[in-house]
Amino acid sequence: MPIISVKMTKEDGGATLEQKEELAKSISETFSKIFNRPSSNAVVLIEEHSTDNYYIGGKSVTKIREQQKIK
Amino acid sequence: MPIISVKMTKEDGGATLEQKEELAKSISETFSKIFNRPSSNAVVLIEEHSTDNYYIGGKSVTKIREQQKIK
Amino acid sequence: MPIISVKMTKEDGGATLEQKEELAKSISETFSKIFNRPSSNAVVLIEEHSTDNYYIGGKSVTKIREQQKIK
Amino acid sequence: MPIISVKMTKEDGGATLEQKEELAKSISETFSKIFNRPSSNAVVLIEEHSTDNYYIGGKSVTKIREQQKIK
Amino acid sequence: MPIISVKMTKEDGGATLEQKEELAKSISETFSKIFNRPSSNAVVLIEEHSTDNYYIGGKSVTKIREQQKIK
Amino acid sequence: MPIISVKMTKEDGGATLEQKEELAKSISETFSKIFNRPSSNAVVLIEEHSTDNYYIGGKSVTKIREQQKIK
Repeated sequence: MPIISVKMTKEDGGATLEQKEELAKSISETFSKIFNRPSSNAVVLIEEHSTDNYYIGGKSVTKIREQQKIK
Repeated sequence: MPIISVKMTKEDGGATLEQKEELAKSISETFSKIFNRPSSNAVVLIEEHSTDNYYIGGKSVTKIREQQKIK
Repeated sequence: MPIISVKMTKEDGGATLEQKEELAKSISETFSKIFNRPSSNAVVLIEEHSTDNYYIGGKSVTKIREQQKIK
Repeated sequence: MPIISVKMTKEDGGATLEQKEELAKSISETFSKIFNRPSSNAVVLIEEHSTDNYYIGGKSVTKIREQQKIK
Repeated sequence: MPIISVKMTKEDGGATLEQKEELAKSISETFSKIFNRPSSNAVVLIEEHSTDNYYIGGKSVTKIREQQKIK
Repeated sequence: MPIISVKMTKEDGGATLEQKEELAKSISETFSKIFNRPSSNAVVLIEEHSTDNYYIGGKSVTKIREQQKIK
């Protein structure tokens, strides 16, 4: 019964349901295969956070993305 | 000063304020009684997450609920 | 399938297994009763942290406890 | 590569972008200075939560604020 | 820069370094492939918790494992 | 009453008590100053994790540190 929490930035309109399902399914199966425990128990919780709330090196991901576009 | 985080799926319109207050009060008092520490310090944070973001065994709770309704 | 995380300070030798079981059982049942969902799905994870790693108002719980004993 | 998560109540319209940037920058630099590791790696994630979901001593911050205003 | 936290029970002597590396690598690559973002940024943090601290339906995983062995 | 969680790798024998106190104090005061709320309420929880359990881009910090030393 692992609990897997995924915190990611919400970008380009956000993750689609298909992407989230694929991610959760893949993580659950990978965990199951590596540890030989049933995947039926894996809990995956996906949280998308605004790039205004996510900072790397003290700089918001919003600003980081802007600077990447300029380059 | 325990920190209790409750992450749950948002279903049927979401938890009401009364339900959340009852939950936080009950958890704080239970903690206080069991460990003999003042309940005034307990912090409870309740987060409701979309059933689209919550996966069990690689399947979204949205899908799990749909399948339960069919049965 | 709520995920309830309890982070508390490890004091007086730490919580006993009986205390932790009582806490987890009580929280699961309370959640189940309030939200009318089966308690069989509630996941409770209890973490005890050193009072050296837990700070309130910038002061470690270790120091807070020392000052409380003096008074 | 420390991960710093800040969970706070959303009050008075919420934290401004400037406040959040200042907080993330300051925490990253403080960490870097104390531990002598590059600040470029620090990840800061700020979450604001409704005062209806945040409880201290079993009482919502919403109620606590109301009672503080009366006094 | 997703932050992926894996909380699992420590069983059978605990996860080996090889298992943890495989898990982190696989999750990072899966995330990268699905969202088309570089895997170099993914942070994975694996925590193993005692079965005495992990409860499902109010019952410790320690007890659940004992009952499974009897059957 | 912000809850600030700091998850960092345990390196060079681990953070000293002085370093952790300085970090918690500084974060609490910074928060207080920026948001004009009392620092007495800030909760800071510092967790140190083994470099074997911390992965960046699918590579453990243990391995990253080894490769940095070679260079």
